[in-house]
Amino acid sequence: MSIRIGILGYGNLGRGVEAAIKQNDDMELVAVFTRRDPSTLKIATAGVPVRSQAELEAGCDDIDVLVICGGSATDLPVMTPKFAGKYNVIDSFDTHANIPTHFANVDKAAKDGGKIAIISAGWDPGMFSLNRVYADAVLPNGQAYTFWGKGVSQGHSDAIRRIKGVIDARQYTIPVEKALDAVRSGSNPALTTREKHTRECFVVVEDGADKAAIENEIKTMPNYFADYDTTVHFISAEEMKRDHSGLPHGGSVIYSGITSEGTTQVIEYSLKLDSNPEFTGSVLAACARAAYRMNTEGMKGAKTLLDIAPAYLSKRSADELRAHFL
Amino acid sequence: MSIRIGILGYGNLGRGVEAAIKQNDDMELVAVFTRRDPSTLKIATAGVPVRSQAELEAGCDDIDVLVICGGSATDLPVMTPKFAGKYNVIDSFDTHANIPTHFANVDKAAKDGGKIAIISAGWDPGMFSLNRVYADAVLPNGQAYTFWGKGVSQGHSDAIRRIKGVIDARQYTIPVEKALDAVRSGSNPALTTREKHTRECFVVVEDGADKAAIENEIKTMPNYFADYDTTVHFISAEEMKRDHSGLPHGGSVIYSGITSEGTTQVIEYSLKLDSNPEFTGSVLAACARAAYRMNTEGMKGAKTLLDIAPAYLSKRSADELRAHFL
Repeated sequence: MSIRIGILGYGNLGRGVEAAIKQNDDMELVAVFTRRDPSTLKIATAGVPVRSQAELEAGCDDIDVLVICGGSATDLPVMTPKFAGKYNVIDSFDTHANIPTHFANVDKAAKDGGKIAIISAGWDPGMFSLNRVYADAVLPNGQAYTFWGKGVSQGHSDAIRRIKGVIDARQYTIPVEKALDAVRSGSNPALTTREKHTRECFVVVEDGADKAAIENEIKTMPNYFADYDTTVHFISAEEMKRDHSGLPHGGSVIYSGITSEGTTQVIEYSLKLDSNPEFTGSVLAACARAAYRMNTEGMKGAKTLLDIAPAYLSKRSADELRAHFL
Repeated sequence: MSIRIGILGYGNLGRGVEAAIKQNDDMELVAVFTRRDPSTLKIATAGVPVRSQAELEAGCDDIDVLVICGGSATDLPVMTPKFAGKYNVIDSFDTHANIPTHFANVDKAAKDGGKIAIISAGWDPGMFSLNRVYADAVLPNGQAYTFWGKGVSQGHSDAIRRIKGVIDARQYTIPVEKALDAVRSGSNPALTTREKHTRECFVVVEDGADKAAIENEIKTMPNYFADYDTTVHFISAEEMKRDHSGLPHGGSVIYSGITSEGTTQVIEYSLKLDSNPEFTGSVLAACARAAYRMNTEGMKGAKTLLDIAPAYLSKRSADELRAHFL
């Protein structure tokens, strides 16, 4: 019997989860749920209905796990606790500073409802977190460095789009090769924000826009760009479509630790992703499997990937994993 | 209160575990146990006694976890089931083909005794296994490639030492750069044994030994060298001591998977280890912590790293992990 999945929200991430479910033969997409009028939404999976979020609120007994694909700023803090009482739920909450509060809210709801809720799944937080924790547990006398990119940062791209005169923008975060090499050498360097990453922006502007002023506004934008070496390229709408329509991303967690005097051990975990939302969606799908199984065994409450034995994420049996993957 | 650790066996791995315990302030080494006469063994930690294995067999109530540092061929298949009934135990059993049998034997003993036994810990099996399983769970439509090296293979070094006329030998396993690049590109190449790794041997021979015959015997040795491109260097005992006294190792698990047509996602986990036994010992120490905690919570039976929620391996609290590592 397949694990019956519902997706709530159909942006880039919702479509990524939809793509991931097609790669997993032990799960099936039951429905995509939306806050909009369902008749206005067309999804990629033939024969699967779009249903209203109101149905979820009323209660659906044909869903084993609900994957909530909303934004971390305003959607997930409300939606995940709300649905965690009724369904096993998965989210990708990624506002690192607010994770403890979100966890507490979701944990209460999930425990009250007897369900499992896996929060902050994806790659950072998510697979990168796992690697930070494993490395720190194995090599307590060491230091973790996280690098992102080369890849598209959607938040930074959006920030540029809000500038007057800008029609479209794509921002790439790029790790500095020299910093990567220093960390890989095991020298545990002290690195400033500027030394770790650069930012490269591709911008389409309105006819007659003041490019110099836009470039200056980008480069001096606090939090987003002021602390980085930033490059701005003005391109045409055609070039944007042709060269920058994907959402690639990736990065590395590099950990260097000492096990005795002069003995350095370096661990590196890297992702090179053609599609950030499809990879994130794939992590969420594996978490949906784990949530279903853990709940079936009687577990409940909020969890993160740090609380999940890896075997729960795999569709393979424990025997098969021991015989062929260990 | 510290977790009280006993080490059984004091070869390279036992010393690696001893070094790891010094890096972990929540555990203490209670004793090293040996099959030999304890008075003949001197260990690196001041004030810690060497005791006889016979004491372990009789029963020691001052040990929370016993880390068994024996060989996989003949020691561990006997020792781990024997002590799993009395103590929480950890081993690094690494004969991949025999893991299911070893697991079953240890599981029975540990369940009967109400203890936790973590088998096959280390980096392969161990951290590499985790990465194969996580990647396969997240990207089911993909393929894992494991590369080892550059590093010293102790089994292959031993095989050379058994040749007549050879005084000492060190064998380095080296991954082929071209194969690594092909796998990293996401092309999922079919690779033969010879295409993945080369073997480089440094050999000290007796005066007047027939070097050509020894080189030929190495290069044609079945299972060990015949399927590889092998290079042999004859060096002096002084050069061996000066240039080849460490036990560095490492390697990579590279996994490439598809999430939709034409969308490739590549995951790479790499280790660059100055000391193979100290890193393996560090994984075993983290597993000792997990075994102790899991048993304190009432769990019992045999486990592998695939069955352990990552948070159990860390000395940090769940709150701290969520706030600072997620």
